[in-house]
Parts: sequence; structure tokens; C-alpha cells
Amino acid sequence: MDKVKEQILKRLSIVEGHLKKIRKMVENEEYCPDVIHQSQAVQAALRKIDEIVLHGHLHSCVLHDIHETKSQKEKLVEEIVDLFRKSER
Amino acid sequence: MDKVKEQILKRLSIVEGHLKKIRKMVENEEYCPDVIHQSQAVQAALRKIDEIVLHGHLHSCVLHDIHETKSQKEKLVEEIVDLFRKSER
Amino acid sequence: MDKVKEQILKRLSIVEGHLKKIRKMVENEEYCPDVIHQSQAVQAALRKIDEIVLHGHLHSCVLHDIHETKSQKEKLVEEIVDLFRKSER
Amino acid sequence: MDKVKEQILKRLSIVEGHLKKIRKMVENEEYCPDVIHQSQAVQAALRKIDEIVLHGHLHSCVLHDIHETKSQKEKLVEEIVDLFRKSER
Repeated sequence: MDKVKEQILKRLSIVEGHLKKIRKMVENEEYCPDVIHQSQAVQAALRKIDEIVLHGHLHSCVLHDIHETKSQKEKLVEEIVDLFRKSER
Repeated sequence: MDKVKEQILKRLSIVEGHLKKIRKMVENEEYCPDVIHQSQAVQAALRKIDEIVLHGHLHSCVLHDIHETKSQKEKLVEEIVDLFRKSER
Repeated sequence: MDKVKEQILKRLSIVEGHLKKIRKMVENEEYCPDVIHQSQAVQAALRKIDEIVLHGHLHSCVLHDIHETKSQKEKLVEEIVDLFRKSER
Repeated sequence: MDKVKEQILKRLSIVEGHLKKIRKMVENEEYCPDVIHQSQAVQAALRKIDEIVLHGHLHSCVLHDIHETKSQKEKLVEEIVDLFRKSER
């Protein structure tokens, strides 16, 4: 788990670096489509982080059966569908 | 479950109807942005269907514990993360 | 232009075929993640159609300067940003 | 234009703040779905920035007719379609 955490924090550092670059591009009034491409790359990097976080979450939830009661299981299902729904926008 | 199936089939009929409308719009050379809006509405309707299908799937998998072995559970986790990844594009 | 129209109608036929397949999969109660994958493929095919329609639209609008007045040009800009916004969901 | 630039930089500051919050959430091992929700909010904020940047770009390109030759106009069209395509993922 600590290894996954480390990996996520490393990816977050990269995202932070790219975001600083976007700020500089906007300040320097660089070519607009280039700014948007850079922003789209950051969004893709965040989605990749989401995937890693989701994977870790499901891995512990499903494999270790931490949802024991029916209502806990229902909560897990709603949660996954909710993340799926929001990931689509 | 049959009720969910019925609901999905009904939504698919609506999508089919909208798709026919898009065909007619293209044939009649209607205003392009209107065609795209119609197509985006169809995509949103399909994503809603995906949500319903996913909900039904998880409901039976997680609540009824049909994944018993470790490798079955791992397969379920990979499957959900894969759907999540693809939903983002 | 007629060639583009023909290409779009051909792609719509393929989408219609895939949609029929989804219906059959739901009726036969096929494996849920497979249904969602099929639906995601249809959505990707529709987005490709959107791109082709948008390209044709912009090509005629921008290259042939059909927006002459300032308010027509402003309308074009709003329209493109609106399509961009909706494409993101 | 400076006003738009200011608005974008302000929004970028908010995004940077939210990103720091995500880092803290990961470090503190907060509940995974909450981390993903926060990340999805950052992605939505970046998409809003993209829209503002695109609007500013098109406004200057289309209204001020800075694309004069046919090949410049074609480049603009390709550029918009490319941004649209990437925005969909």
C-alpha cells in the first residue's frame, strides 16, 4: 500500500510541475491552443491517478471483504457507480 | 432483474429513435451544430444505459458474493477499473 | 461535400448495426461488462462522426467567410465554444 | 484581454490550492472515493479554464480576421477540430 501511495505522490508532483508550466504559459501569453493541450495533458495525468486510487480502493474492499453487511455492500456499489458517472463528464 | 432489463431495452429504443433522427438531419443537410448536439444527446443516453448496466452487474456480483476465489475477485476489480478507464474517453 | 455526407451516413449505418447488437446482447443477458464495452465503442463512433461534421462545418464557415458581420462572427465563436464544452461531458 | 488573463490566473490559483489538498488527502490516507471526487473537481476546473482560453483565442482569431490566407484558415480549422477531439477524452 505504501508503494502505491508513493507512486501517487510522485505522479502528483509531476502534475504540480505541469500546472506551474501552464501558469507560466498564460503569464507569457503563449499560443492558446498550446495552453489547452498542456491543460488536457494534466487532466489525463489526473485521470490516471484516479485509476490508481480506485484500483487500490477496490483491491482492499473487494479482496479483503471489508464490506460485510448488506448495507455496506450496497454502499460500495453506489459509490462505484457514482465514480463511474462522474468520470464520464 | 427483468425490470432492469425492460428499462434498458426501453432506453435503447429511445436511442434508436434519436439515431434515426440524426440520419434524417444529415440527409436533409440540417445545420451542423444541431446534428452534433443531437449526437451528444445520444452519447449521454448511452452513458446512462452504461450506468444502469454497471449498477445491475455490481449489485449481483458484490451483494451475492458470486466472486468467491481470490482470482475471481481480482478479475472483478480489474474489470471495474477497466470500465472506469474507458468511460473517461 | 456530398462525399463527406456519404461518409457520415455510412458511419451512421455502422453505428446502427452496433446498436442492434447491443439490443441483442441485453435481450440474451450477455455478460454486463461486454455490453458496456460495446456501448462505449458506439459512443466513440459517434464522437468520430461529430468530428467529421464539425470539420465540414468549420471548413465552410471559416474558409468561405460566410460570417461577415461582427454579430455573425460572435455567434460562430459562441457556437464552437458551446460544442467544445458539451463534448467534454 | 488582460482581464481574461487575470481571470485565468485566478482560476489556476484555485486549481493549485485544490491540488495541494489532494496531496494532503493522499498523505493522510483519506477515504479513496473522496480523493477521486476532489481530483474530478480539479479536472472540471481545468476544463472550464480551457473553455475560457479557447473563447479568447477564437474571439481574436475569428473577429479580427487574423487568418488571412487560405492555408492560415485551414490551420485554424484543423486546430479547433484537434482541440475538440482531445477534449473528448
